[in-house]
Parts: sequence; structure tokens; C-alpha cells
Amino acid sequence: MLIRTTLLTTALTAIAVLSPSSLFAQSWQPPSDAQRCPSKWGAADQRGSGNHMKPETVLRATRLIRTGEVFELGRVLRTDMPFSSGRRFEMETKRTNMNAGSNRRGSNEEIVFTELGQVGTQFDGFTHQTIGDSMYNCVKVADVATRGGFTRLGVEHVGSLMTRGVLIDVAALKGVPMLADMYPISVDDLQQALQRQKLTLQPGDAVIVNTGWGRLWDTDGPRYLKTNPGLSTAAAEWLAKQDPMLIGSDNGPIGVTPDPDPNLSLPLHQIALVVNGIHLLENLKLDELAGKQVYEFALIVQPLKIQGGTGSTVAPIAVR
Amino acid sequence: MLIRTTLLTTALTAIAVLSPSSLFAQSWQPPSDAQRCPSKWGAADQRGSGNHMKPETVLRATRLIRTGEVFELGRVLRTDMPFSSGRRFEMETKRTNMNAGSNRRGSNEEIVFTELGQVGTQFDGFTHQTIGDSMYNCVKVADVATRGGFTRLGVEHVGSLMTRGVLIDVAALKGVPMLADMYPISVDDLQQALQRQKLTLQPGDAVIVNTGWGRLWDTDGPRYLKTNPGLSTAAAEWLAKQDPMLIGSDNGPIGVTPDPDPNLSLPLHQIALVVNGIHLLENLKLDELAGKQVYEFALIVQPLKIQGGTGSTVAPIAVR
Amino acid sequence: MLIRTTLLTTALTAIAVLSPSSLFAQSWQPPSDAQRCPSKWGAADQRGSGNHMKPETVLRATRLIRTGEVFELGRVLRTDMPFSSGRRFEMETKRTNMNAGSNRRGSNEEIVFTELGQVGTQFDGFTHQTIGDSMYNCVKVADVATRGGFTRLGVEHVGSLMTRGVLIDVAALKGVPMLADMYPISVDDLQQALQRQKLTLQPGDAVIVNTGWGRLWDTDGPRYLKTNPGLSTAAAEWLAKQDPMLIGSDNGPIGVTPDPDPNLSLPLHQIALVVNGIHLLENLKLDELAGKQVYEFALIVQPLKIQGGTGSTVAPIAVR
Amino acid sequence: MLIRTTLLTTALTAIAVLSPSSLFAQSWQPPSDAQRCPSKWGAADQRGSGNHMKPETVLRATRLIRTGEVFELGRVLRTDMPFSSGRRFEMETKRTNMNAGSNRRGSNEEIVFTELGQVGTQFDGFTHQTIGDSMYNCVKVADVATRGGFTRLGVEHVGSLMTRGVLIDVAALKGVPMLADMYPISVDDLQQALQRQKLTLQPGDAVIVNTGWGRLWDTDGPRYLKTNPGLSTAAAEWLAKQDPMLIGSDNGPIGVTPDPDPNLSLPLHQIALVVNGIHLLENLKLDELAGKQVYEFALIVQPLKIQGGTGSTVAPIAVR
Repeated sequence: MLIRTTLLTTALTAIAVLSPSSLFAQSWQPPSDAQRCPSKWGAADQRGSGNHMKPETVLRATRLIRTGEVFELGRVLRTDMPFSSGRRFEMETKRTNMNAGSNRRGSNEEIVFTELGQVGTQFDGFTHQTIGDSMYNCVKVADVATRGGFTRLGVEHVGSLMTRGVLIDVAALKGVPMLADMYPISVDDLQQALQRQKLTLQPGDAVIVNTGWGRLWDTDGPRYLKTNPGLSTAAAEWLAKQDPMLIGSDNGPIGVTPDPDPNLSLPLHQIALVVNGIHLLENLKLDELAGKQVYEFALIVQPLKIQGGTGSTVAPIAVR
Repeated sequence: MLIRTTLLTTALTAIAVLSPSSLFAQSWQPPSDAQRCPSKWGAADQRGSGNHMKPETVLRATRLIRTGEVFELGRVLRTDMPFSSGRRFEMETKRTNMNAGSNRRGSNEEIVFTELGQVGTQFDGFTHQTIGDSMYNCVKVADVATRGGFTRLGVEHVGSLMTRGVLIDVAALKGVPMLADMYPISVDDLQQALQRQKLTLQPGDAVIVNTGWGRLWDTDGPRYLKTNPGLSTAAAEWLAKQDPMLIGSDNGPIGVTPDPDPNLSLPLHQIALVVNGIHLLENLKLDELAGKQVYEFALIVQPLKIQGGTGSTVAPIAVR
Repeated sequence: MLIRTTLLTTALTAIAVLSPSSLFAQSWQPPSDAQRCPSKWGAADQRGSGNHMKPETVLRATRLIRTGEVFELGRVLRTDMPFSSGRRFEMETKRTNMNAGSNRRGSNEEIVFTELGQVGTQFDGFTHQTIGDSMYNCVKVADVATRGGFTRLGVEHVGSLMTRGVLIDVAALKGVPMLADMYPISVDDLQQALQRQKLTLQPGDAVIVNTGWGRLWDTDGPRYLKTNPGLSTAAAEWLAKQDPMLIGSDNGPIGVTPDPDPNLSLPLHQIALVVNGIHLLENLKLDELAGKQVYEFALIVQPLKIQGGTGSTVAPIAVR
Repeated sequence: MLIRTTLLTTALTAIAVLSPSSLFAQSWQPPSDAQRCPSKWGAADQRGSGNHMKPETVLRATRLIRTGEVFELGRVLRTDMPFSSGRRFEMETKRTNMNAGSNRRGSNEEIVFTELGQVGTQFDGFTHQTIGDSMYNCVKVADVATRGGFTRLGVEHVGSLMTRGVLIDVAALKGVPMLADMYPISVDDLQQALQRQKLTLQPGDAVIVNTGWGRLWDTDGPRYLKTNPGLSTAAAEWLAKQDPMLIGSDNGPIGVTPDPDPNLSLPLHQIALVVNGIHLLENLKLDELAGKQVYEFALIVQPLKIQGGTGSTVAPIAVR
């Protein structure tokens, strides 16, 4: 609420001096290359927040495994699941091939045509997003894009991640099963939810935000895709400052969509992937985790090592 | 040569004590449906050895994590990696899509055309293999195959696996970097290697066999594919009796290829997947694990939840 | 209306002697293999009605070219055109590849993922349809199907076709721009339309039936696909007896859909492709031809030579 | 040898009269946008040489049809045919779908993954090639390229072509079944061959050049692709001045490959498609036409109407 007031104040001040069209555009602007590069992980770095993966990080996660319970956070890959515009998952069974031999061995496979880095529950790498022509660490698209992927920043550089996971249940904080359409989660919301859960964030955490929106995945795909509650720009920037290994949520964009500022297109994606080199984990299945109030756990995710890829569809787990 | 001589001796010994008919073609025959069904996991089971995944299994694996070291066992997915006949991994970059908005956000994706369940480092599900028309638990292909996958036994039923992993380093036992082409690993080899490593197998383990063959993956794909050392039929059956969660290796077929019996086509695949319901993990990258003599560890693998899929390309890890 | 009354009378008569369940099923039954094989073109034939392509056929068509006017009968291949269930035309631009050289030559291509034999304006070959497991000339699917097409009866055997085309404008006969949904075109309709147009059919003709339904292609795809007016079973059989080179129309199934007999699934496809070996030409754009009353012309169609293919998307023309 | 000697003589003669700098790299330079735009067909034109398609053109072709003989000029589309770098034709049979109904109708289709505009016997449209960022009529790639094709100059604007075809048999002129690797066909060669055949070119012709190279298509794909005899830059420019509807040949690039000038990458493609707006027809099967000395005929080609496409695989015919 405080933020909204501040935003309103800022907006009112702005109205006094700016033309209406520039009103919201000023609320967030992508930093210049000079402001954001080199990244804190070094000018040659390709792994960003994945650099948090160190033995101590793994041990910290391991110590959270006390009951051996596993929670599957990945969605089933279906041809009719919700897709962002222009994406698909097409699959055809290759009919049984009977091999020669007295043991009558038959083989089945499937052929799949898909945006492999960007469908279903997905892990975003750094070549997925740009500010203009510039990606994480100010790598230029034109310098590294080939017809078959990218020669730098590909998702194969990240590796599997295992770290402390923290579920920030904003829907529970608000006492609702699902936040309202286009509800922008504020910094206060995050802080109050953490306080309610008696947890604090640590650098290298996997921060998972529950909005409840995921319950639409199987029941109302069109609504799931049309808009969604999610992190505000301010919340995204605050989270980035907490230095996490990744930010995840039970919706596609993680940021609120559309952005309250009509001039902005999904700024969270730039804040995380381009500016701060923080990976994203999208379309998570969080109902069981939230239902059982599992707020702290080992989060394990294994992105496929797609050479030069922009990301990877994944099947992550939480273990406690 | 030594190896070949040993093989010959073994064969000659076998001839002395066995009826000739059991020497080759009769050395292994697929069991009848009646002999093998229902599976020990129940007639309706779709998960096979994946049923070993229980909290205690996870805790047992967790207790093996002491240093936090992570070993990546997955291969990079490249368009020019070694493929089994008729498979491919084709990838095309989708050129940057610039979104409307003052923040100049561009998006990149890739389109991939591939046998998603059966390329690269891969996890085999039960619809991948048959004995005639019959799969694990005697599910008939004709009853469950659709153009877009299988209505039963799909890989989405397995879930992520985390269990104790044991590397059986047969190459190290033999004192070679790589076993010879078509060397059939015997039960004795496995037992001696375990004894050398001072380890015993437990039900639910992920049993990983190092042949050294994996060093050809990046250097000589055609040779990697043409033949390979691997488990003999007897070794496969012995391993199956140890009741593992999965069997993996640093080659594609896991079994020796071609089979010494020219009438048999890859019987290990049937023994594991069809007869015993044991998952396979193929084309593993084991050099680091073997090099550092990491023989016991937590093995974690997250198959993509491809609905009705025959398996999944994966990026598993070993953690100690 | 007359037709419906006749049908009703027949039905009532049938009800008197048959059990209800067999009422319609008796209206058309696929002939047995013995009744229909070998085909009149010989037991080894793979080309069916394509055998009508002889020099004299071409000359007959050529003599119809008097003004040099060309009518394009093919639809534009769009990713959002109407598709039969489970088909698609996915296309991705491959971004410009700049070649080395002082002449700064750039190349663009596109990658397409589609049912190439069965999308858009399409030419049906004989492997597209079966009666049970049996195709044209009683070739069995199991004997000739591979994962990459069919070893017999593939569309590559047909070749380009150039023959006299006759447009039978049933919509014009009825004085409507478009026949009603599910209107079954009768033998009488065809004969009256031909009489009105003062034309008779000859063996080897390309017989094109205008229903007007094609006007929905660009304006109402869902309706275009849901049902359509088209040839009745009797009309299909009558046309087959006229011994044409192909039968075409401005809808997908050419036969009325659904069939008035709820037990029958698209019998025209079997009558033409399986029983009589007559090719089909679907989703034609006939508005210009009908609008200008071009009823006789040279029809030219060039199916792609897809090895083992079931058909081909095409861009045929009529020339007069 | 004779050929090479002639080439050397020509080169030496050239050296005598030309400054060395103009010998190679300066032997051809792409014209500037100002020099070549707008095209002679108008600044808004998207059809280039396809504009020759007029009733009189069709009638002229029709008058050449005297015997009704048809020659198939298209190659069979095979997964293992010769491909330019990075292209492929992948095909998977979709297993028989049995429809409900008493008539036991089964359907087969195939899924294809391919560069549909640029494989097999192919027709090149104008978006296939650039000089820098500029295409035919100085349309800029950046202005019209989308992820799913081009918004201008797509091959769907061309339409089917039917015109007088002239085979210029350079191999026959030289008395060889196949011209030598990298033999550059000169203007003299073309003129002498035409004189030998007692034919002259007319505006709007389809000019087809026989090199004999096509006999390698089925027998030695790697050699077929590695180099090829073909039109020299001078011959390409001379042919362009004859104002044809298209230029075709029995190799992929039509121009000699590699170009004698090592600084040039396939200049013929720019001369034809970008500078002059003349379509190309590649990988033709010309053996029958050449064998029977069919030098004048009706050429008919029906490019698929791929929306925004760079070209189309085709199955053209010659009819006489």
C-alpha cells in the first residue's frame, strides 16, 4: 500500500511536469549498458546467478532435507497446455520399429517439434531476453546469434542447480486461494509474507512466489495466459537485490501482466535476466507446496544442456 | 587379446557344462507374458522401479551428500552429437522478436525438432520397448498407442528420482581407460568391481556402470555408435535381481552391442524395461566421477513429464 | 427436398424389414478385397486413374486452351488456414545467413513443419486411405508402411497431370451462392448441372464440383471444417463409373460431411481412393472459375514427388 | 583439358586488355540500390519476371504442344537426397488412424520437417536472396521479415507459370555427357548452343541450361554438391538481358560453383533474383529432355503458395 501511495505521489508530481504519455514510462527505464556492465560476476561470465552453485550452497540445501518428501513442481508437457503466443509442443509417435532378432524387440519413440527452451515449466537462460540488441553482460545478439543457437550465454553453461528454496506465499498472506488478475505484488507484500512465515532470504536462494494463479493451468488456459498477478517492478528490483539464484512463480511471466505502466513490456524479465543475470523459473506447480505450508526446502532443477539455448523446459522438485 | 582369450575360455567351459542349445540363441529368450505379468509392483502399475522413490530412499541418498560436490552426468545437446539410427536434434533460432514498449524488450527462442525421449543423455520409460506387441506389465502397444503418445506407461508417471547411486567402475577393475569393443561385462566383473570398491548394492540403488566408452562421445561419434562394451545378458539379469531403481552407463545401449548371440537384438533393453520394469539411463558422462573415484553418491535425475512419452532427454547429477 | 423424401421413403421401407441398427449401414458397404482387386489397371499398378495421362489426353486438354487465361485453383498456405483435425502448417523464418564474399550475399530460408501431403489445396494419393488394413489394389498397410513413408503406392508414382477439366457447378444449378450445410449432392444434381452446362463427361476428365463452400475458407474456417455439402455416396459411385482422372471440389472431404448415414465415415474417400483408384483434389479455390462460368478447361496439377507420400499440397491451375 | 586451355586463353586475353584489378574481385560488383531500383516492373512490384505471365505467353507455349509428350523435370523428394548446407527433408509416417464407422476407414498422413522453399527441385522467390540487407526492388529484409515469413515479396505472389521453354544444351555442344567440375559457361557457349539448336530466345522464355551435372544427383550426392559447372557471371548477365521468365538448370546454384573469382559468393543468385527480379529453377532433372533433344516446349511450374515464402519445392514439367 505504501508503495502505491508513493507511486501515486510520484505520478501526481509527474503529471505536473510531464506530458501524460510519458507518465508511466518514467517509472522504470532499462539501465544503459554502461550502468549495468560488466556484471558483478565478471565481464566474461555466462552463468550469472548460477555462480551461486557452490558446495556450501548444496550443503545448505541438503540440511533442509529432513523427511525425504519430494514435491514435483513441473507440469506435464501436453500438446494442449497453455502456451505463450507462437509457441507449441507438437508430438507424433513413431510407430513401432521391430528389430531383427529372435527376441522380437520393438522400439517406440516420439518426434517432438517445440520451443524446447520456452514451453511448460521452464527455466530461462540469458539469451532469452534483451534490452534492444543487448543481453546479459552486454553481449550483443548480432555478435553471438547463429541459426542454431547462440555462441555465448547458452543455457548449457548454467548446470544443474540445488539450493535452499523459499516459498513466499502471497496468496496465503492475503487469505485468498488466488490473487486477483493483474494484482501487482509489492515489496511490502513480500516482506510481510516472509515475516508471517518467519523466514528471511539469503543470497543464493531460490525464491518461489506463490500467487495461486497456477490453479488455472489445467482448468482455464486462456485466462491463465491473458493476464496474471505477479511481482511489481519494485518488488522485482527488491528481490534482485537479495541476490537469489533464481526467482520462480506459478505463472508464466513472474511479473504482473500486463504491467500497470502501459508503456512497459514485462520489465521483470529484463530486470532479472538482462540487468542482474538472475535466472527465472516459470509455470511452476505450487499447490502441494503451498497446501502443506512447505516454505523452506531444497530446490533442485536440471535444465537440459541445449547448446546455445535460451532456456529449458524442466521438471524441478522441492525436497524437505 | 587377454579379454578375448578369457571370453573364449569362458565359452569353452560353458560348452562343457551346458547343453549346446543353451549356448547362444537359447541363452536368452524373452519370458512369456504369463511368466512376467503382473509385475511385482502390481498389474495396474505404470512406474516400475520408480516405485522405489520413498522418503527413506531420499534420506538415504541425502546422507551421502557430505561435501556438496556436484558432478554433471548429462551431455550437451548438440545437433551433431552421436545419434542412434534415425534420430536427430534439429534446432533453429527464432530471430529476435521486439515487443512494443518503451523498455525495448526483445525475445529469443529456439524451435527444436527431435526424438525428445530418446536423444543425448536419456532416461528410458517403459513405452520405449516391447517384446512383440507387449510392454511392461503386458500392456499391449495396440491398446495404448495414439499418434501423440501412449495412454498408459508414459514417462510422466515416473517423476523425479533421487536415490543412492553406485558407480561400478569395470574399466578401472580391468585397469584400462576403456573396455574393448564388444566386451561383454560378466556377473563376475560386476562382483569383483564392487568388492574392489568395497561396496554392496541395495534395493532401490541407481547402478551406474563405467565402461570408459563415453570418452568417444566427443571424439569419435561413429565408433561410439557402431559397437560398444556393455553388460552381458547374464549381468543384466543379475543386476535386475538386485532390484535397482535404474541402471545407467556411459554408452547408448548399456548392454554389450552387438550381442554375442547374433540372434539377439539388445536383450538388456527387454530385460530391464519390459520384463523387470527397471528404468535405464544412457549416454552418461562419467569421466569426472570415475576420475575422482566417486563410487557412492546421491543420484538425482528429473525426466521431463512428456505426456505419453517413451522417455526423456535429461541432465542428471551425482552429488556427494 | 425431393432427395430427402426419397431417402425417407427408402428409410421407411428399410425399417419394415431391417433392424434399426442396420438401417443405414446397409446403404453402403466397402467391397471385399476379392470384389475390388486387382484393379482395372492391373494387380501391380500404383498409379490408378493417373494412368489416364497419355499424349492424347494432354492434346485433348491443350485444344481447350484458346484464350490463354489462367485460373489459380490453389489456396495460399497459411499457418492459420483451416485444417482437418490434427494437422498444421508451422513455419519459421531462418534468419539471414550472410555468406563470405565481397558481394555481400545474404540467404533466407524457412523451416516448415507440416503434414505435407494433407494440408491446404491437396492432392490425395492412394496410401492416404484404407478399408481396414487394405489400400488401393489390396496393398496392405502393414506390408508397405515404414516410419518414413510407404514402399508402394507413394504419390511420387503419379506424376503431373494435365487433362480436360470440367466444372460441374451444382451451386449455380440450385441458384445459390453456396449449397446448404450437409447438402448431399445427388446423381440427378450432377446430371442436371451437366445438361445445363451442355457438357458430357469423358473418361480421363478432371471432374470438379462447385458447391460454393469454398467462400468460407477465408471468412469462417470453423464452419468450413465442421460440416459441408458434398457428393452423396450414390453420386460418388456414379462419378467413379465415369472413369475420371480425378475428382475435386471446393471443400475438404468432397463427399457430404457428415454422411447422412451416421454409421459411415467419409465413404467417398474409400470409393475413390481405395475401391476405384481415383485421385482426389481438395480445398480448391473455384470462385473465379464459377464466377466466369468457365466449365471446360485444361486442368494442370503437379503433385510434389514425396517419396512414399500419401498425397501432396498443390497449386493447380485451370487454363482456357 | 581443352576447356581449361580455352579458359586460360580467355583469361590471358583478358589480362591483356583489362587492368589486373578488374580481373577478379572487380569483375562483378553488386549494383547499388540507386542503380537497380525501382525495378522495370515498378517500385511496388512483387512478381518480377513472373509478370511475363500473360494470355499471349500461355498461348505461345500452348502452340508448342504437338505430341502431348510430358517430361517430368522434378526430382523425387527423399530424406537422403543432396541438400545444400543446413537443409533437410525429414519425414515421419503418422500411423494409421482408424475412424469410427462401419466402413472401417483408416487414414494415413506424414509429418514433414523441411526448408520447404529450398529443397529438391526448387523454385526461388525473391526473399531468398539479398545484397546486404536489400532484396529485389530494394525491399529491406528488416522491414518485411517476420518469424513466419516475409510480408512482401513472398512466393505466393508469383503464381503458376506456363511459358515457352528452351533447353540450351551446353553439354551437347561440347560433346560431353557432363561438363567438367567448375566449368564456367560463357556467353559464347550459350550463343553457339542456341545456334546449333537453331533457336533464338524470346522475352518471357523459361531458359533451361543443361550441364549434365544432374546425372550425379542419384549417384554421387557429395560430388553433386561440392562444386558444379554452371553459368559464368557474364553469361548470367547476358541471359538476364534476354528478359526471361526464369532461368533453370540441372544443378543447385545454376551459376558455376565456386565462382572463379574467390571473392564472389554465387553472384548469379544476386544477378537474377535481386538485381533483375528473375526467378530461378534449380536441381532440374533434364536427362530425358536432353536425351531426346527436346529443345523447345511448354514449361509449366506451380510453386506452392507459401505465404511469405522464399521459394517452393516443385515438380515442373515440359510438354511438347
